[in-house]
Amino acid sequence: TINGDRLWQSLMDMAKIGATEKGGVCRLALTDEDKAGRDLFVQWCRDAGCSIRIDAMGNIFARREGRNPALPPVMTGSHLDSQPTGGRFDGVYGVLAGLEVIRALNDASYETEAPVEVAVWTNEEGSRFAPAMISSGVFAKVFEPDYGLSRTTLDGQTIAQELKRIGYDGPDHPTVDAHPVGAYFEAHIEQGPILEAEGKTIGVVTDAQGQRWYEITFTGQESHAGPTPMNRRRDALVGAARIVEAVNRIGHAHQPYACATVGLMQIHPNSRNVIPGKVFFTVDFRHPDDAVLAQMDRDLRAACEAVAQEVGLEMDFKQIWYYAPIRFEESCVAAVRAAVDRNGFAARDMVSGAGHDACYLSKVVPTGMVFIPCIDGISHNEVEDATPEWVAAGGQVLLEAMLAKADA
Amino acid sequence: TINGDRLWQSLMDMAKIGATEKGGVCRLALTDEDKAGRDLFVQWCRDAGCSIRIDAMGNIFARREGRNPALPPVMTGSHLDSQPTGGRFDGVYGVLAGLEVIRALNDASYETEAPVEVAVWTNEEGSRFAPAMISSGVFAKVFEPDYGLSRTTLDGQTIAQELKRIGYDGPDHPTVDAHPVGAYFEAHIEQGPILEAEGKTIGVVTDAQGQRWYEITFTGQESHAGPTPMNRRRDALVGAARIVEAVNRIGHAHQPYACATVGLMQIHPNSRNVIPGKVFFTVDFRHPDDAVLAQMDRDLRAACEAVAQEVGLEMDFKQIWYYAPIRFEESCVAAVRAAVDRNGFAARDMVSGAGHDACYLSKVVPTGMVFIPCIDGISHNEVEDATPEWVAAGGQVLLEAMLAKADA
Ligand SMILES: NC(=O)NCCC(=O)O
Ligand SMILES: NC(=O)NCCC(=O)O
Repeated sequence: TINGDRLWQSLMDMAKIGATEKGGVCRLALTDEDKAGRDLFVQWCRDAGCSIRIDAMGNIFARREGRNPALPPVMTGSHLDSQPTGGRFDGVYGVLAGLEVIRALNDASYETEAPVEVAVWTNEEGSRFAPAMISSGVFAKVFEPDYGLSRTTLDGQTIAQELKRIGYDGPDHPTVDAHPVGAYFEAHIEQGPILEAEGKTIGVVTDAQGQRWYEITFTGQESHAGPTPMNRRRDALVGAARIVEAVNRIGHAHQPYACATVGLMQIHPNSRNVIPGKVFFTVDFRHPDDAVLAQMDRDLRAACEAVAQEVGLEMDFKQIWYYAPIRFEESCVAAVRAAVDRNGFAARDMVSGAGHDACYLSKVVPTGMVFIPCIDGISHNEVEDATPEWVAAGGQVLLEAMLAKADA
Repeated sequence: TINGDRLWQSLMDMAKIGATEKGGVCRLALTDEDKAGRDLFVQWCRDAGCSIRIDAMGNIFARREGRNPALPPVMTGSHLDSQPTGGRFDGVYGVLAGLEVIRALNDASYETEAPVEVAVWTNEEGSRFAPAMISSGVFAKVFEPDYGLSRTTLDGQTIAQELKRIGYDGPDHPTVDAHPVGAYFEAHIEQGPILEAEGKTIGVVTDAQGQRWYEITFTGQESHAGPTPMNRRRDALVGAARIVEAVNRIGHAHQPYACATVGLMQIHPNSRNVIPGKVFFTVDFRHPDDAVLAQMDRDLRAACEAVAQEVGLEMDFKQIWYYAPIRFEESCVAAVRAAVDRNGFAARDMVSGAGHDACYLSKVVPTGMVFIPCIDGISHNEVEDATPEWVAAGGQVLLEAMLAKADA
């Protein structure tokens, strides 16, 4: 059995790295804080007797050997990076629940048949480098390693440069071809309101929504806010504002389920008395039904073309990320459900609203996910919170689901 | 007479300081580039035999003595600071046209009755520090010196700190009380399309529009762009986008003349998959009729309150700057018009769409302004341009208008 207190304590210790004033964390991918988080995780794993491998994408694998080292490992994991104003659970919970599985097995001197591994995937959040889940995507051969390594921040540093800078540019080939996996499980906070609202402790994740991400630049003409008549303007921010409104409308038009967000916007030159000449912004679309997601895409393209035309703007429109809705593997979902039933936890099946490393792993490895609630459904926010009971329950389900596969 | 070639050459030499790739300048107030521009101006003035005074707001006054040193000087001037993507003429033209007046008087060994001074006003643009025209405003006793010195950049440096850093925190008291002025003239590019469209070389500026500037912060709730249902969101950027649209609508609703702009916006945390929790943005309103400007203010307040309510946002709404439309002094306007007529320049009366240091000077000193056209009416843009003929014509009008007052 899981030691819930120890798992909670590890979460709180890790949350000190990059802690923000409002009680959250800022541990953006491949920053010094991310390095400090990785170093602490590696130390804890070594203390628990694990061996460590690091691949060329900076993914970390901590391994507890099995009776049969030739069997592919049963793997769990998640990410240690956070949003700029992130919480103490998103990602790190899945990593440290995995560590707790290993510690609990050690406590019981239990030898699994297959090895057990805990993975830390690089840049899951997609905040410092887009898209999200980039390194689990490389592992799953959805992205080429060169594509992954060349992703850049908004001011031009690449993942390759930043991995090198923090010393996590590992020697291993970064795909599943060099690293077969028997099954993959990931524990995560729900990041939405459903479980808490329904009084459930565990979500058995059967599916994940599809996603499309876009980068759009509108270019008009900078000009003086005073003497430039309204009818001579080509105001890039007026155009971008109309798309923010259109994105919101598209989200509402495809209810239930659709989510549509403009999260990032950069205005140029961003001066009070200058008509904005250029605006760069992003769009994030989600839907569990691929056909609806495609309709949202068409709606967005139509809105952007209409607005560019009516405001007199040049447009650079790129879809930079797409993955179709995902269905998790039946036997893995069943292993999670069986662990839930054994413990008598209140639970429900659910569709993940967020993307997770498990989504890409599912493309190459039988995969399942375990959700626990989070307070008020709030995530990607410094106030993100969960109870020690939920945290322990999710860890227990993870342990039992992994054992079912490792000893199968 | 003015030496147009020399004036043009000085403009081009000054434009090397802070030159941008696209042919403009970035010489934000009190940066190292602004210091370099100031140093060059001071050197040129010393070479022309002027004495230099610097006041506590960093305003620079270069003085050519008159036959009667006890008379208050006839002053001209403008600013050397620019927008982030500014042009080679905005502000600097008025300063260097003033220097050319002094050089031309030297060439002619002409002694004026009253002294002649050229002023460089600190932070006219209002881009690095808001509001605009802060130091001419202190000079004209519209703002307290302490208010002026405590204006801050968006990341917290004050004018006082930055003046000290670049060595332009002068010893003189920064108001007209310590520095009486007989008359003030300012030459400037129009920054709008009217003169060029009508084939005029000179604008005789009779009035300037009033302005209102606002700082608005909407606070909603950061949350995950994936699992947060549309109907649970409090998206601060959706609110801000609606105000961008409302501001544009208010500008169009009060035609002719109204201008309405959102030039600056900062999104927090500005991450692709986070619903924006906080957005800070500015509004710039202009109108030549104070009553209409007041109506625009009421329209904005109503729009902001409605949007904050409908999106579920907290709002911090501040009007940070207001000045009523300005009428320039009759005898100064007449002196400009007489100089235009003497030279036979095609000209028209006009209302300034931009604010200028002359607007504040007009509150304490008889003041007039001279406009020259700018290509396509484009300003606050790196492509801002003017012809050597226009530049020379404006300098000649400035010289003659100043002489009319200095020898009166
Ligand atoms: N779980 C999570 O926050 N992932 C980030 C990628 C996404 O936005 O779905
Ligand atoms: N002339 C000029 O660009 N002044 C800046 C202040 C304003 O925006 O009116």
